Amino acid sequence: MSDKAYYLFEEIQTNRGIRIDKVKEKIKKLAIETPSWGYGDSGTRFKVFQKAGIPRNAFEKIDDAAMVHRLTGVCPSVAIHIPWDKVEDYGQLAEHAHHQGLRIGAVNPNLFQDNDYMLGSVCNVDPIVRKKALAHLLECVQVAKEVQSDNISLWLADGTNYPGQANLRQRKHWLYESLAELYSSLLPQMRLFIEYKFFEPAFYHTDLADWGMAFHLANQLGQQAQVLVDTGHHAQGTNVEHIVSYLLDEQKLGGFHFNSRKYADDDLIVGTMNPYELFLIFYQILDAEQDVDAGVRKTAENIAYMIDQSHVIEPKIPAMIRSVMNVQTQYAKALCIDFVKVRQAQLENDVLGAENAVREAFEFDVSPLLRVVREEMGVPVDPLQAYEASGYPKQILERGVGGASW
Amino acid sequence: MSDKAYYLFEEIQTNRGIRIDKVKEKIKKLAIETPSWGYGDSGTRFKVFQKAGIPRNAFEKIDDAAMVHRLTGVCPSVAIHIPWDKVEDYGQLAEHAHHQGLRIGAVNPNLFQDNDYMLGSVCNVDPIVRKKALAHLLECVQVAKEVQSDNISLWLADGTNYPGQANLRQRKHWLYESLAELYSSLLPQMRLFIEYKFFEPAFYHTDLADWGMAFHLANQLGQQAQVLVDTGHHAQGTNVEHIVSYLLDEQKLGGFHFNSRKYADDDLIVGTMNPYELFLIFYQILDAEQDVDAGVRKTAENIAYMIDQSHVIEPKIPAMIRSVMNVQTQYAKALCIDFVKVRQAQLENDVLGAENAVREAFEFDVSPLLRVVREEMGVPVDPLQAYEASGYPKQILERGVGGASW
Amino acid sequence: MSDKAYYLFEEIQTNRGIRIDKVKEKIKKLAIETPSWGYGDSGTRFKVFQKAGIPRNAFEKIDDAAMVHRLTGVCPSVAIHIPWDKVEDYGQLAEHAHHQGLRIGAVNPNLFQDNDYMLGSVCNVDPIVRKKALAHLLECVQVAKEVQSDNISLWLADGTNYPGQANLRQRKHWLYESLAELYSSLLPQMRLFIEYKFFEPAFYHTDLADWGMAFHLANQLGQQAQVLVDTGHHAQGTNVEHIVSYLLDEQKLGGFHFNSRKYADDDLIVGTMNPYELFLIFYQILDAEQDVDAGVRKTAENIAYMIDQSHVIEPKIPAMIRSVMNVQTQYAKALCIDFVKVRQAQLENDVLGAENAVREAFEFDVSPLLRVVREEMGVPVDPLQAYEASGYPKQILERGVGGASW
Amino acid sequence: MSDKAYYLFEEIQTNRGIRIDKVKEKIKKLAIETPSWGYGDSGTRFKVFQKAGIPRNAFEKIDDAAMVHRLTGVCPSVAIHIPWDKVEDYGQLAEHAHHQGLRIGAVNPNLFQDNDYMLGSVCNVDPIVRKKALAHLLECVQVAKEVQSDNISLWLADGTNYPGQANLRQRKHWLYESLAELYSSLLPQMRLFIEYKFFEPAFYHTDLADWGMAFHLANQLGQQAQVLVDTGHHAQGTNVEHIVSYLLDEQKLGGFHFNSRKYADDDLIVGTMNPYELFLIFYQILDAEQDVDAGVRKTAENIAYMIDQSHVIEPKIPAMIRSVMNVQTQYAKALCIDFVKVRQAQLENDVLGAENAVREAFEFDVSPLLRVVREEMGVPVDPLQAYEASGYPKQILERGVGGASW
Repeated sequence: MSDKAYYLFEEIQTNRGIRIDKVKEKIKKLAIETPSWGYGDSGTRFKVFQKAGIPRNAFEKIDDAAMVHRLTGVCPSVAIHIPWDKVEDYGQLAEHAHHQGLRIGAVNPNLFQDNDYMLGSVCNVDPIVRKKALAHLLECVQVAKEVQSDNISLWLADGTNYPGQANLRQRKHWLYESLAELYSSLLPQMRLFIEYKFFEPAFYHTDLADWGMAFHLANQLGQQAQVLVDTGHHAQGTNVEHIVSYLLDEQKLGGFHFNSRKYADDDLIVGTMNPYELFLIFYQILDAEQDVDAGVRKTAENIAYMIDQSHVIEPKIPAMIRSVMNVQTQYAKALCIDFVKVRQAQLENDVLGAENAVREAFEFDVSPLLRVVREEMGVPVDPLQAYEASGYPKQILERGVGGASW
Repeated sequence: MSDKAYYLFEEIQTNRGIRIDKVKEKIKKLAIETPSWGYGDSGTRFKVFQKAGIPRNAFEKIDDAAMVHRLTGVCPSVAIHIPWDKVEDYGQLAEHAHHQGLRIGAVNPNLFQDNDYMLGSVCNVDPIVRKKALAHLLECVQVAKEVQSDNISLWLADGTNYPGQANLRQRKHWLYESLAELYSSLLPQMRLFIEYKFFEPAFYHTDLADWGMAFHLANQLGQQAQVLVDTGHHAQGTNVEHIVSYLLDEQKLGGFHFNSRKYADDDLIVGTMNPYELFLIFYQILDAEQDVDAGVRKTAENIAYMIDQSHVIEPKIPAMIRSVMNVQTQYAKALCIDFVKVRQAQLENDVLGAENAVREAFEFDVSPLLRVVREEMGVPVDPLQAYEASGYPKQILERGVGGASW
Repeated sequence: MSDKAYYLFEEIQTNRGIRIDKVKEKIKKLAIETPSWGYGDSGTRFKVFQKAGIPRNAFEKIDDAAMVHRLTGVCPSVAIHIPWDKVEDYGQLAEHAHHQGLRIGAVNPNLFQDNDYMLGSVCNVDPIVRKKALAHLLECVQVAKEVQSDNISLWLADGTNYPGQANLRQRKHWLYESLAELYSSLLPQMRLFIEYKFFEPAFYHTDLADWGMAFHLANQLGQQAQVLVDTGHHAQGTNVEHIVSYLLDEQKLGGFHFNSRKYADDDLIVGTMNPYELFLIFYQILDAEQDVDAGVRKTAENIAYMIDQSHVIEPKIPAMIRSVMNVQTQYAKALCIDFVKVRQAQLENDVLGAENAVREAFEFDVSPLLRVVREEMGVPVDPLQAYEASGYPKQILERGVGGASW
Repeated sequence: MSDKAYYLFEEIQTNRGIRIDKVKEKIKKLAIETPSWGYGDSGTRFKVFQKAGIPRNAFEKIDDAAMVHRLTGVCPSVAIHIPWDKVEDYGQLAEHAHHQGLRIGAVNPNLFQDNDYMLGSVCNVDPIVRKKALAHLLECVQVAKEVQSDNISLWLADGTNYPGQANLRQRKHWLYESLAELYSSLLPQMRLFIEYKFFEPAFYHTDLADWGMAFHLANQLGQQAQVLVDTGHHAQGTNVEHIVSYLLDEQKLGGFHFNSRKYADDDLIVGTMNPYELFLIFYQILDAEQDVDAGVRKTAENIAYMIDQSHVIEPKIPAMIRSVMNVQTQYAKALCIDFVKVRQAQLENDVLGAENAVREAFEFDVSPLLRVVREEMGVPVDPLQAYEASGYPKQILERGVGGASW
């Protein structure tokens, strides 16, 4: 039946003018980076529920990430976070990853958990703290060199909780100064991803509060600096795909932190709250891949897709597999958009026709396609089931309770 | 100059028809309960910054609350939270409070930090967990009896993170069943405050998500059950004072958890983000105190005012004193409203006149009044300065770092 | 290929334990009422763009509604709005509808466009205005009797724009008094739907601002009063399906006004912004249809589904057809939920399993099913195409520009 | 008593180190432009309530604006909107203004009410429409020259209602192209203010949706292009004063459209919903006026303060006077900030101290100061009362009902 379903799907898409071979090729190439911290315990400010089987160190986190890659075939890299993943020998960590078919992806500095950073890191009024924060950033570039990663991914938690607490413009200058030094330490092939966030942990102002601030900073720094869009870091109602299309057009979209939200930065499994939004993001990306401008095309094709979630109640590895599958699902649907039809309707100012031409792709059931793609890739057709059937869930129980958390 | 300022204030208000003696009497009677947990370390999910001088146990938290009461004169009770304030002998704890001129206020159950409550407490699908949660609620009623408190204040964190995760209607029934048992254990003079919250820690649905659900539940339970309004627990844009007026009219407003927010449940110092909102809440309360219906009047006069904040970066005791002062400021301003003028304008459908009649009270500087009130009460005119000048800030440093937190 | 697709769909669903015959029966029975005003010109406060072919009166609006019913087979009734659809002889209007296979559905009073209502209708401080508003409500009950409709659908725009503008509690009493009189004029088989709205046209407070206020009012009035949920009338982030499940459990959900929103009350085509939310609403309804309580089941089966949109830029009739199809799509998907599987996972506290059991139904492509259902119903398989192919679009151009608007 | 109040105020401020002469000078110099359309009838999409006495043409609107200037002394210019204020001879209109002590301020193009603009103006897919829109923009520059205004103030309503409706990146390019042509037509002393808006009238995407897009566009165009901040055009929770400080630091803040909002773009009287926000905006501006960078200082001192409200239920002229007074109130309070104290506390990372140093200025009652300032300026001490006492309210009734509206 599965085969039948696939052949029918292929027939339907072919009749619509969709090149199914290209669709499959694209899906196979969609690499989704998973975060080492996504395998650890995490929670809300009210409670971190500890689970059995949580990795106890950076090496075990990589083991879990490797398991996800073996089951999905599309997660070849794992993001690390310093100092959560601090080890004595980063070369050894990279080696450990390589042995399992992985590589180290984005290196994420941490400028929010040291006691000195209570009132800011690179934006702190105290020059000693700013210096310390900058040293950490430079350390992360060094780590990236050691693990042969080309990506530094910076989320800056700096902000204030009260009006008047700090001089906002002064902090803006300090921020630029530190990042300029960080930028100048990058190797030519490296990219610096600059993330923004509407609020939390700061509740009055956040120094990098929105895409506009991240974008302007990236412009000031240079070509290697790009904006990172975390799908949960916006005000309610924000049209995220519009921002995506804007950054693509400016050749400044570097990557994503995927997750879902209904309220604030809920960090839920991507694709579970409003899957259509994820589909529409991919629609903008695929549209940009066909741009006349080579720079725009290249930007769209060079996006770093990363998952960044906080699994409070979910089993970690299955949650990560589900996340990867959800991303694939919406990407596959977006690949079924008949762009010729969309553009024709747009040119004719046919509002309903253009809306329908995009939405009709969303309504396809792409699960037969994804099963076949997985077969062709030599990974399990049902990665979640395969995970449960493997010995891994039982094996990790040996780690006990009380593994890594943030 | 301070005297001059007060006499001028008195003259102006008297000319407006405001009875300054009654205003002072009202301010002196406004009791504001502080929470034991507000003196401990607290933070965001990203970090709890530990401070020196934090109380190490329930007794020391009461010491801090007593200090705030000595300095302000209007904080005669302290809310406790079980098990954060669990002690072997609650009588002894109450005695400790009495010795310092305090009494134990609302007893707050904790249904969110036990590992068993990860997927719900009284709404958990597992009857054993529900039973355990109910037992804890009943234990809290017992504690209340032992500390001679008449208030149980329930915030229920129960909820789900994903569509389909649970049967929402079934959980609603379980919630009612447990609370009905809790309710039947109350002494006749006791009140049960039912709090609601828009989201967090649950990110898809919260079993008591808004005032409507808390109100309906309180109606089902009976007269001793009332709604508690936490000023930070609403969707963006919600007209909180409208809800306050509605609950007053229904004689179902039990109390407040005061704090400020700009984004979500930010739990900042009350009165720092939008002080006008706090003023407008008091306007509704003072308006209801003049209602023809005795029940409405009594409800308005019997509100439990409680502070509930999470001081992430602030020194705890000064933050609490500032909070108390901010509440007094807005209350004092609301007492300067010329209700005759407001009502006349309302009757005449004079939009600008009515708006102005309310707002003009907000624009008065009530600090001279509050200084005189404090003098008359025999407390420091400047409680914050008095705190800094006392030996207390130095004395508590002996507690070291690593005190109580949640 | 279409046949192939359907047979495969049937096979898959049958294997999952879904009774396809029952699914089809349910879809055929899902009646969706369209609003007469949805066929007229409408716009934003900035501009109403006038289109050619807009109906010039109530009779022509019914013609358009009848066309939509002929093409979809599931829109047997049309809501009317007084005075927009005021005619001399309502019996004649009903007759006109019957001749075209339609009946008149909900009668909607208008309490917001008379000059007297600028500062409120049934909540106005002026008793003469309140009396006039009540008279209009009673007139609408009379109209309902004349057109043999059993539904009165009340949206109350009353509210204020400024703090202090009016006595909120007094208005609450006036509101109850008028609705109590309206209620007492209902025939026993009639229902009164009470709608709520977060804001607009009032920008400070709205007298019926949320479901809690509408629900309490319906409880006070009696069994024939029920709450109407307009999907665009909530604060950002509100879990609408939770409210739906709550009202179902209380047997107080009367009906829906379907539309889509991204920001405020955008009144866009239903199902175009976040189709998953619509699916989840139907999930709650279908869940309630299986309740042990007969009253809950009956409530769920007796919901009045109505579209209420404001087509600013869209061609009106195609927009309505698209809306009806979008509702059917999400309803059909929800009918594919394997409730046994969902409940089993819920009982086992299997978060990922339960979430997946609901979402997997959303991922089916139900278009083959809907095509077959339409065939079996004897309506066009593609209603939009059939509309374009009919002479109707051309025929209505004779109406010219400048038809009905609100 | 008024005198006593002022002398006490002066004494208090002087003791705090505030130079009261400079404060008064600043208040007198704060020019607030009123909009011609604010004197006309306006409303919501549900109803425009027509009032008696509304100006019937551009000349009468200027009469009303002149009245507001006579009564307040701080509204020397009036913004016009083309074609709402289209006249045959703009020189004559300017002359009419001059005779009454006014000048014409910002010229506002209208790109949203022509039928051709239904799906966009300068972003329309149709080159003929784009050309027409550009011609209108150039016409407005011509009008500005004729009325000797140096400010073009552009609000672009362009956007889409549905995903897929249009190519977002293509529209971005068309937008730039038109504005580049507009920009090149400016005289050297002219400024182009670029406004942004979160949503409405478009409900899916707005081509200039946030400050980041307006800022980038202004950067691309050149020095004469600056961003205009309308206080009601942001997502809920947005920290507007942060954006203000950011734009000041970048020397790209051109002006404000002042109004209040609680929900969306409510366009209520400025200072009535959250007066503290307005105060905090002025805090940022006054802070920037002391910057070491001359460009930042000049930018802060050269801001165009404009009111942009939609008076739905209010009498127009009194609403405008109240708005002007509310702006003055918050400005005067901000001028009482002890910046030395603020900066000292900021340098010491004294969170509570710095917060208090800003907020304490907000708590002063500046009405005695404003009365004296008005006396010194030779305008009525109570402008609203003076308006009611003047013959003007009666005189304009001759205009009848049915004046200008938008």
